[in-house]
Amino acid sequence: MHFTVETSSNGVVEREFTLGEITGVIWSPVSGPDHAPLVLMGHGGGLHKKTPAQVARARDLVVTRGFTVVAIDAPGHGDRPRSAADEQARADLREAVAAGDNARFRSVTIGYATALAARAVPEWQMTLDALATLPWIGAEAPIGYGGGITLGTAIGIPLTAAEPRIRAAIFGGGFFPHEALLAAARRITVPVQFLLPWDDEHVDRSAALALFDAFASPEKTLHANPGDHRSIRWVGLDNEFLPRHLSSGARGV
Amino acid sequence: MHFTVETSSNGVVEREFTLGEITGVIWSPVSGPDHAPLVLMGHGGGLHKKTPAQVARARDLVVTRGFTVVAIDAPGHGDRPRSAADEQARADLREAVAAGDNARFRSVTIGYATALAARAVPEWQMTLDALATLPWIGAEAPIGYGGGITLGTAIGIPLTAAEPRIRAAIFGGGFFPHEALLAAARRITVPVQFLLPWDDEHVDRSAALALFDAFASPEKTLHANPGDHRSIRWVGLDNEFLPRHLSSGARGV
Repeated sequence: MHFTVETSSNGVVEREFTLGEITGVIWSPVSGPDHAPLVLMGHGGGLHKKTPAQVARARDLVVTRGFTVVAIDAPGHGDRPRSAADEQARADLREAVAAGDNARFRSVTIGYATALAARAVPEWQMTLDALATLPWIGAEAPIGYGGGITLGTAIGIPLTAAEPRIRAAIFGGGFFPHEALLAAARRITVPVQFLLPWDDEHVDRSAALALFDAFASPEKTLHANPGDHRSIRWVGLDNEFLPRHLSSGARGV
Repeated sequence: MHFTVETSSNGVVEREFTLGEITGVIWSPVSGPDHAPLVLMGHGGGLHKKTPAQVARARDLVVTRGFTVVAIDAPGHGDRPRSAADEQARADLREAVAAGDNARFRSVTIGYATALAARAVPEWQMTLDALATLPWIGAEAPIGYGGGITLGTAIGIPLTAAEPRIRAAIFGGGFFPHEALLAAARRITVPVQFLLPWDDEHVDRSAALALFDAFASPEKTLHANPGDHRSIRWVGLDNEFLPRHLSSGARGV
């Protein structure tokens, strides 16, 4: 893990890093105890690790909870080079949207997200391995998946299914729950908070509900508010979800 | 409004009352400002105004929020006499359950709940009129419907649709959303918190979701956890829902 740029403002240290091909960022308190809970954030499709909304949420978790937050760019996103396959998928998506072809949009999205997740899951695991070697994070920090809509969930679900270090996870709507994603959800047993925009323009509601149904977690919560995944305004959200599940672990260290 | 029994314990005054045929109870702080927010609670089918769970929730709202809470027995429930029609409906329900006849259970429940709601809505309105004449409640107290599963929701939805004094409402699952209930839901525009047991044994999930869909409220939240309406354990519930919507009104008085 190679740190490239470090800045500090308003009590938050932001460290950008590279790890092989991975480009990422860590936000942490300027001062605080070691081994604070670690929250992984996944950006949406076509976006990157430092979108304004994601930065704001990360900084809030650092300042109000003392957590460490890490985000990495998905393959072909953000600071990472795009392959010919990335460019092709993006072109196909643009064409499908321009043509108003929802079926094509769905099939290209699923294919591309599945390919990205297959690369991103081991990248997240490499990132966790590297973070565990940092003395102030270590193997002791309790880890949660902090959400991210669309691609962030399409990657987060197989990651959480594969990764026993993740103790709790937030997923969100705005993607297509295909069979591989449902199969991964059925392997998840940690507490899940599932955020559903009630009026998504692309994603069939019953498919999203089937995904919530699939999680094997004894503790899972579905939270829905009106709106599309771009226009949604979350109301009355349980902001104690991650603190509740990550802080008890922290006390046990 | 005739007060019959008054007791006080652990900071909560409990006053039972009658109002014509209505039997009810008010819980309030031993001391506190006048015109505190007023929460209406509706019990489930076959139960009564002072079930242990309802008493516990009422006392919690009084002690932790300083609210006033009122509950009345539905017609034919609790301290109220049962008519021949009440006895017939209960016998029909028992028979349907014993025979495992879900369709019959559904049709009898809908018919009985609709008949009860037609009587209970004006009774709640009379109760609100009477409470408004009490100096310590008055017409100024902001009013919310505080929930109640099954019958409490089957009555609460038409009540909230009919009653402009209700500023926010909590409804819950475990009932059958028939057309009249959907029509009432479409007239509701105040903030709604909708609590859905994800695995109800009697009520079709898609019908419950159609009811959530029907509320015209710009602010509405669906919260679901695994379980049937008897076994449900709510997790991460937004307990600030009523305080948020009733306290701003209180400041405006």
